[in-house]
Amino acid sequence: VALARTGRGDHIATQLAAIVGADGVTTGAAIAEEDTHDEALTASAVRPLAVVRPTSTEQVRELVVLAAREGIPLVARGSGTGLSGGCRPEPDSVVVAFDRMDRIVDIDRPNQVAVVQPGVTLAALDAALAGSGLLYPVYPGEMSASLGGNVATNAGGMRAVRYGVTRQHVLGLEAVLGTGEIVRTGGRFVKSSSGYDLTQLIVGSEGTLALVTEVTVKLVPRLPYSTTLLAPFGDLDALAGAVPTVVTSGVAPLILEYIDATAMTGIAAAMDLELGVPDEVRATAAAYLVVVLEATREDGLEADVATVAAVLTASGAAEVYVLPALAGAALISARERAFFVAKAAGADDIVDAVVPRGAVFDFMAEAARLATRWGAFASACGHVGDGNVHLSIFQPDPAARHELMAAIVGTALDLGGAVSGEHGIGTEKLEYFLATEDPVKLELMRRIKAAFDPDGVLAPGRLLDRGPSH
Amino acid sequence: VALARTGRGDHIATQLAAIVGADGVTTGAAIAEEDTHDEALTASAVRPLAVVRPTSTEQVRELVVLAAREGIPLVARGSGTGLSGGCRPEPDSVVVAFDRMDRIVDIDRPNQVAVVQPGVTLAALDAALAGSGLLYPVYPGEMSASLGGNVATNAGGMRAVRYGVTRQHVLGLEAVLGTGEIVRTGGRFVKSSSGYDLTQLIVGSEGTLALVTEVTVKLVPRLPYSTTLLAPFGDLDALAGAVPTVVTSGVAPLILEYIDATAMTGIAAAMDLELGVPDEVRATAAAYLVVVLEATREDGLEADVATVAAVLTASGAAEVYVLPALAGAALISARERAFFVAKAAGADDIVDAVVPRGAVFDFMAEAARLATRWGAFASACGHVGDGNVHLSIFQPDPAARHELMAAIVGTALDLGGAVSGEHGIGTEKLEYFLATEDPVKLELMRRIKAAFDPDGVLAPGRLLDRGPSH
Repeated sequence: VALARTGRGDHIATQLAAIVGADGVTTGAAIAEEDTHDEALTASAVRPLAVVRPTSTEQVRELVVLAAREGIPLVARGSGTGLSGGCRPEPDSVVVAFDRMDRIVDIDRPNQVAVVQPGVTLAALDAALAGSGLLYPVYPGEMSASLGGNVATNAGGMRAVRYGVTRQHVLGLEAVLGTGEIVRTGGRFVKSSSGYDLTQLIVGSEGTLALVTEVTVKLVPRLPYSTTLLAPFGDLDALAGAVPTVVTSGVAPLILEYIDATAMTGIAAAMDLELGVPDEVRATAAAYLVVVLEATREDGLEADVATVAAVLTASGAAEVYVLPALAGAALISARERAFFVAKAAGADDIVDAVVPRGAVFDFMAEAARLATRWGAFASACGHVGDGNVHLSIFQPDPAARHELMAAIVGTALDLGGAVSGEHGIGTEKLEYFLATEDPVKLELMRRIKAAFDPDGVLAPGRLLDRGPSH
Repeated sequence: VALARTGRGDHIATQLAAIVGADGVTTGAAIAEEDTHDEALTASAVRPLAVVRPTSTEQVRELVVLAAREGIPLVARGSGTGLSGGCRPEPDSVVVAFDRMDRIVDIDRPNQVAVVQPGVTLAALDAALAGSGLLYPVYPGEMSASLGGNVATNAGGMRAVRYGVTRQHVLGLEAVLGTGEIVRTGGRFVKSSSGYDLTQLIVGSEGTLALVTEVTVKLVPRLPYSTTLLAPFGDLDALAGAVPTVVTSGVAPLILEYIDATAMTGIAAAMDLELGVPDEVRATAAAYLVVVLEATREDGLEADVATVAAVLTASGAAEVYVLPALAGAALISARERAFFVAKAAGADDIVDAVVPRGAVFDFMAEAARLATRWGAFASACGHVGDGNVHLSIFQPDPAARHELMAAIVGTALDLGGAVSGEHGIGTEKLEYFLATEDPVKLELMRRIKAAFDPDGVLAPGRLLDRGPSH
């Protein structure tokens, strides 16, 4: 079997090299370890048949045609920063890595859009926008993430409470269907009622409908003033009351994060954070709210800060700290690393379920109860203004953890939520998704998949596990 | 043939009445004239087999099952305020009118969402939100429009420049597929990465994929302060320069409308508007910008007004009028009626093409040249901040007008735009859409249609003219 697979691998590698050049293909032991997984805590590394790195849309098209002819599944890979195994290879798959398609095609200031290849990272786009007065506001917290990967998972992040997620910023795509056909969807316009919104359908489809080869995103004005507020709460009920008041205040915070005491202790220690919170306040804090405000004018910002500080104080915050600029940036930067801090502390899985905003504290309370029941510990940190607080689950026993995860996901769904708020389903949440999604909708999605990819070339088995039944 | 059709009509009417009750069905001469068309200037009235008025999702499901069995096309109808013929009956169709499904299911303040049946009008929803501090911000300018109709066409309107269009506000749907299956998509949460976004696919699909039986929309804080600015420009190039400056100023106007001199004269006369613009300014004005600003605080609003007034003045506005509240409201109300003013003045068709923001003045200039070439006149009024300025076309000769419309749509597409920005394709823009859309995408959309509606029950012939070819 090993020999047969090697033989097939060689045969495929030759054909792949004919498309992308020999330096664009790796196979066997030459495949880099980092290409065999993403950052999901639970996903094991899987070595594919080959990893191929196209440099053009035409090469991607030829790869799809080859894959369809040879019956080889293709798994797309951006920067590999995903947390659900979305780019994890299958043993018999070819990974299409987009890091060589990393050209910023256009920064179009009159239309306030950027056009990028999928391998462009958020850091590269942000650098290209410096001085333009414009911002791509989606901020999943990992600037090495690629735009293509963000499109595949519909990435969210800390600024979603103000600006929305990737979906709300993608105006158009170029993509290769499973048929090998190339389509261009949407454009540099901000609205349209001209047929089905193929752009929105492809965003979040995790590489199962099409391989995205170009992304057109909407930009927003980069506001010059911002301030970070930090509010420790001794009482979780008081914090729970503060959140909707801030959200509906009209002030529209850029960031509204919840960090429980465990997570704050972890990131503060790991990142050497000095926020000026006295020990006695820290000792009694059950959790923290972090609010970042931004404004076009300094006086407007000051007024917004006063409004939010008053709301937080009236809601029962132990203190409200208006952080100096450097400390504020350090806190947000530390918050960005919360996942890696949890990972280093031994977290075994991450819950990314989303619930209606008003249900997020019920969700966290029930998750904590469930964690106790399964002999586990859960630490919470995340996008409380969006009903999407991530839970780091500490329970090394896979069976117990699995049952706990299923129970927590079930709680989220009972509260009217969904399995994933922003990380996607990937390989690691697929079981929970398939177990809980309406079978009628799964069949509908399978038929939609077949419309894009009739031969099942693109990440077969992902999201939907199989084709439509008839 | 008439007798045969009458016989079939009777047979169908009996079965329809068994589902919705006798008082929910009209046939033949009993069909109200207003049910035979929408507001599209070019659409003629068409009498369907029957008009049926369900009161529940279950009735809608039974109607779809009946229609599939009998091979009868179903055409959905909201309030009939559309401008593209989207709800125009076909002679052999049954119209499913949703005006009896007009219940506001829930105003959910903790989650900042409203859940409504499709027949709820924008006016009814706005009234239900009074005093809640929350607003459904989509404002197509016709408050008798229904939410279901807005979802079908992905309605836009004046506030889209600030808040986006219907698509950006629909969080979830209940809908009946062409198979008779009922699905619930999305929910009361604001983000998700859990499978294909069926909600976004159904929004804007003009009744061809599913019949929507419930809509969950996102609400925003209702800001207490607003001001309207009116800026006449003698020079169109100066006005063109002002628009991107306002859009990127960070002030985020609620409304940014362009009204050319002809349209302003028309609406001012029709609505008896007194805006305090002296005759000598009016005489030299080529066009006007209307900017509405809103804010959480009065001093913030004043600062924003000063910013925008300075931008407009620096850009070459002849004057900048900060209108008293009543005059501002009267102007926006008059702008809402611009379509009916144009209609009364004899307009023969409306262009709703959208282009990239930065191309909208090139588009209008070329459209004016084309109008002259075809012996027509075009008056422009609309959403300049979104690249979606509507053109009223005055050319009574159908053949000349048709050629002109095709040429103008072609110009929009050459500039990177799309056929419809917010009115939808319906029956009246279908020819332009089919002639210009990529055949690969049309075939893909036909396959998607087949995934939802394999028997072609829902508005067959709309958007895609036929099923997929194999």
